Order: sequence, then C-alpha cells, then structure tokens
Amino acid sequence: MQHQVRRQAALEAARGAGVDALVVTHLPDVRWLSGFTGSSGAVALGRAGAALFTDGRYTTQAKAEAAGLRVVIGKGSPVAQAAAWLAERKAKKAGFDAVNTTVAALDAMRKVLPAGQRRSFFVATQGLVAKLREVKDADEIRKMRRAATLGCRLFEGVLTNLSAGETESEIALVMELEARRAGAEGMSFETIVASGKRSALPHGRASAAKLPHRGFVTLDFGVLLDGYCSDMTRTVHLGKATKREWDVYHSVLEAQQAGVSAVAPGATCGDVDEAARSVLRKAKLERWFTHSTGHGVGLEIHEGPRIAAKQKQVLEPGMVVTIEPGVYLPGEFGVRIEDMVLVREKGHEVLTRASEKAWVEL
Amino acid sequence: MQHQVRRQAALEAARGAGVDALVVTHLPDVRWLSGFTGSSGAVALGRAGAALFTDGRYTTQAKAEAAGLRVVIGKGSPVAQAAAWLAERKAKKAGFDAVNTTVAALDAMRKVLPAGQRRSFFVATQGLVAKLREVKDADEIRKMRRAATLGCRLFEGVLTNLSAGETESEIALVMELEARRAGAEGMSFETIVASGKRSALPHGRASAAKLPHRGFVTLDFGVLLDGYCSDMTRTVHLGKATKREWDVYHSVLEAQQAGVSAVAPGATCGDVDEAARSVLRKAKLERWFTHSTGHGVGLEIHEGPRIAAKQKQVLEPGMVVTIEPGVYLPGEFGVRIEDMVLVREKGHEVLTRASEKAWVEL
Repeated sequence: MQHQVRRQAALEAARGAGVDALVVTHLPDVRWLSGFTGSSGAVALGRAGAALFTDGRYTTQAKAEAAGLRVVIGKGSPVAQAAAWLAERKAKKAGFDAVNTTVAALDAMRKVLPAGQRRSFFVATQGLVAKLREVKDADEIRKMRRAATLGCRLFEGVLTNLSAGETESEIALVMELEARRAGAEGMSFETIVASGKRSALPHGRASAAKLPHRGFVTLDFGVLLDGYCSDMTRTVHLGKATKREWDVYHSVLEAQQAGVSAVAPGATCGDVDEAARSVLRKAKLERWFTHSTGHGVGLEIHEGPRIAAKQKQVLEPGMVVTIEPGVYLPGEFGVRIEDMVLVREKGHEVLTRASEKAWVEL
Repeated sequence: MQHQVRRQAALEAARGAGVDALVVTHLPDVRWLSGFTGSSGAVALGRAGAALFTDGRYTTQAKAEAAGLRVVIGKGSPVAQAAAWLAERKAKKAGFDAVNTTVAALDAMRKVLPAGQRRSFFVATQGLVAKLREVKDADEIRKMRRAATLGCRLFEGVLTNLSAGETESEIALVMELEARRAGAEGMSFETIVASGKRSALPHGRASAAKLPHRGFVTLDFGVLLDGYCSDMTRTVHLGKATKREWDVYHSVLEAQQAGVSAVAPGATCGDVDEAARSVLRKAKLERWFTHSTGHGVGLEIHEGPRIAAKQKQVLEPGMVVTIEPGVYLPGEFGVRIEDMVLVREKGHEVLTRASEKAWVEL
C-alpha cells in the first residue's frame, strides 16, 4: 500500500517535470517504490500502471517483496525491458535519472524503442525519486529509529574497549561485530575511529594506530538495519584533558545543540547551518569547521537535504537529517559530535538520544 | 614503473580503437593505471602524457600513491577536469567507458569542451582497460597469491566452528572477523554459507538458519587484501552422508579437477567449461549445473575472461580465473567446489591449493 502511494507520488512528480512515464534504475529508488531488495531491477511507471523488472534469480523474492506490483522476469537487462514495456503501452516521454544511468544503459533503453521514438522518448529528470525520499513515512521512521537505537547501543558497548594501546581498527571491528550480531546487514559506511592527532582528520578511517594515553578519540559510525542507515559521531577523551581540549569540546557541543534546536518545519537548511556555525564563530573556531553541518539520511547514508550555508531548502516533517559540526586543529586534535534528528510536525526529535554526548573522560 | 607500462598499454589499446586519448573513470581502472586508491578520481591519457585528477581531500594520498604521475587537484568533477585537460592538449578523440560512465558525467565531460568539439570528441570504447587487466603482472600475482592464501586460512580456521546448531551468519561473521584481523580491508563479496537444503541455492547468503546435524554446508567467500580479491568455495558434510551425497560430491570434485586441469595458455574458455561440464554430463547431473564454470578475478571479484560454454576467448599466461562447477538439487542439497587458478607460461597453478577440497566429514 505504502509503495503504491509512493509510486503515485513519483508519477505526479514526473508529470510535473513534463514526462508521462518514468524508468527508475537506482536501486534505493527501486526499493523505495517497490519493496524489492535484489541487486538487479528496474521500475517502470506510466499511465498504464507500474511494473518491476528483474531476472530469473529473483523470481520468488521479487514476487514476495513487491506484492501488489506486476513483476516481469524477462531476458536482457531489466532497464531495457522497462523501456520497451512503457513504449508498448503508449507512453510519450519517459524520465530517467542521468546521475544514476550509464551511457550504455541509456543506449540499451533506446535500442528497444521503435526507430521513430529513439531520439525523443527519454528525458533526463534528475533526482525526482530521491527528492520524494527525503520525507520519510511512518514505516521508514520506525526503521530509522531502530537503526539509530542500535547505533547508540554500539557506542555504549564499545566504551569499555576504549583504552590506551588498543588499535583503532580493533575498536571498529568490535562495533561491527556487535552490529552484525544484533541483526544489522552491515555498517552504513566505513567506520571512523580517529584518535590523538588523527582526530583532526575529518574522515580518519580506523587505522592501525593505537589509542593514546591522553587525547581525543572520535567515533563516527552507522549501521544498516532493515535497509536503513544510522549515522552518529561521538568524541570522548582518554586521560586528563587540557583546558583547551575541554573548551573546544564544549564549543562544538554548544554548536551542535544550537543546530539541533534549530531543526523544525519551516526552517531553511541554511538557518540550521548558521545556528551551529555562529556558535563556533563567536568562539573564534569557525575557520576550523571546514565542512557543512549535516545531510539527510535514509536508505542511503547521504541523501538530501543538505544542511549547509545559504541553502534555501525548507525542512519538512518526516525529514531525517544529521547535525554534525566539528572543529579540526591540524597537528593538535579534533572534535565532532553528530546526531540524527527527525523533523516533526512541531519541532524535532533526536533519534540518537539514547547515548551520552556530554563530556566523557575515560 | 609498472603503472607507466600499463598506461602505455592502455594508450596503445585506445589507438587500436581509433582514438588518440582516453578518459578513465572506473575506480579499479584508475587504481590499476595510477596506483591511486581514493574514492574519487579520473585518469587522462593522451599524446601529451597522462595525469590523475582528484579533489582536495586526496592531495597527500594521491601524490604518494601515484608517484611519477602528474597529479591535478582541481575544482569540479575529476572527470570534467580530465576532459578539459585533454582537449587543451590537442587530443582529437577521446575514448570513455560507456558501461561505467553515467549520462550526467558524460554531459559534464562535454560541457567543458570548446563548442565545436562537443559532439564528436568522445567515443564509447567499452572495456579497453578491463581487457588489459585480465592479464596480471608479477606484482599483482604476488598480491593475489597472498589473498588466496588468507582465504584458505579462513576456511581451515572455521572448520572447528562448523557444528549443528551454529547459525550460518555466525559462521560468516567468524570468517570475516578473522579476515579483518589478518589485515584484509574486508570481504570481496557477501559471504555465502548455505547449509542443508539451502546448499541447493547457488547464492545462499549466510542466513539465520542453523547448521543441521546431517547435511552439506557450502562456504563461498573471499577476502579483499591490498586491493585484490580472493574467491573460493568449499562444501563440507556434517554427520554421516548418504551414498547419493557422496556420489554427487565426487562427481562435482571430478568435474572441478577436470576444469582445473584444462587451464593452460592457448585453451579457450569454452574448452575449460566443457572439460568440467562433460564430467557432470556423463554423471547425468548436467541439468543441475545451472551456471558457467568460472570467471576472471583481480581488483574486482568478477572480471574477464568468462569461463562459459562456447566462449572462444583464449587463456593467456597471467590470467587468474575461478573454476567452480556446482550441482544443485532443489529441495535436496547442493555441492560447489571452487579454486582460483593462475594461467602460467606452461599449464597452471592453483592459488587456493593450501586448503582441503577432498571430502570433509565433520
């Protein structure tokens, strides 16, 4: 049912973009529109209805997952089948996502059309479904809440492993093992464990470096649970901190909380970014905050909207975004704190609230 | 040095395809040509030389990894920079890989060209670099041997975990943990652990199913070590086997060994497939061998050549292929045995030889 509602919305968006049909090939979009989770598939949407195209490996799975949708198991590439199916059903113009369609796939899609339609049938309509996916429905919010809660549990669990001499990669492994044991398909991105001076690297993937006796450890990680991503960052301190470390941490925390507080329907993404950024500006740390404040998250780890300076996009209820300011002092240390935040009808809800983000000193 | 040799070979292949330049965007190709392992980059090859394009996140890494190659850190997409660089240096026609280039990327590549060149400059030249990558050089063979050896070690290590009641996913996890502890970046594909009736699924990903007291367990897995993939399959039996199980296993083993024996320079891929397939035909099991005999492996888990019926491609020294016949009896059980095999100047060498593939009963 929810998938049918989504397909209807996609078709309306397609019409708004001047086409009467849509070929969808990006797998997260295919999953969102149909429920199908296989590694090869395409969805066609048009006046004549909708269909999912895949291959013989997925006959049983596709029919089970995409209940209520016509499933076509054919020969050749699913995307070419989808194109032929639409053309046979009198679609006039079909949108396709240029960012996720290869030149070879577009060629295959065109080859199956009647000669007269080859040039004009397909129109690039970038990100139509991705845009719709920015607003999560009740089922998705439930799944994202579960993923976020599991993420929090991993962090609480790994705290006992954070001690001098442990390697970053072993810390990452412990978290990943726990995630898999808890039923996650895997991690939503390569786990970041950046300790000591490495905490000044915004994307310091877990390395063979050993945790220091004294210094920060930044953990940025997420699970993939039932298809949905979680994403959170915590920075903890080993040993006694300097005043400078304490001060920078609390400036970042204050910025992060200001960003979270600004999340509400009607706020622009630029407003939220500025709420976080202005705290670091006042603390004279802005020049070390070298990235944007956050991003949407869902079936993919990076989705819209972008929470960045001057972005005019307005937050809507059902969006899930990260708020993750950081300060990186090259050669010294870095601090980043990140939560996943759901935009509600009024205000917001922090999905990663279960775990501590106040100062942790181990 | 080896990268320069490879770039020269790629440029010659491009000339053979009627272009005087090449834009390479597929990351395994970029890595093979330059040594660069980052997540965003493009290589341009032309009369004027070669260059690697990436972004500011990778300045230090690119210069270290792609020593001896011009590294350009620019604004905008690396692929558009590569296109502009070639056009400025008087390239006339540049090949690009249509299978790995999106419509949006091609559009970006064209937009940076002088108006007069936009229509004719880029020519689709499918798989030029992938073709060259089929033949591994000494450095690659060394890395693949290490990956294959680690794969064998995982199998030998996990044998003690294979007992009734253990879940398939826990078995997979134990292997993955060991791989990571041994320095692997991860697994080269999602680990298959298919037990009991599930062994009849050619791609039975590790599930929550528990290993039975009696029956087969198929393990198909590989590591990613220093960029290179290993791939192997072993099928072991828990408890006492029936005569039927014993017979089918030994037919598959005989087919697999016949396939391996046929691997030699000058043999066609079709010959090798037939060597394995004919054994199963004689055993009246051919109809249950529903896939091809093998595939090339290297930086990617699936590369050329395809070891399949009637394939005329000739094996060459330096190719690394899998030989993996299987028999799948729906509702009963399945057996697959797979090795990685290097084509040598004379004959072949089994890279996954360190681990047992004779009958294992636990």
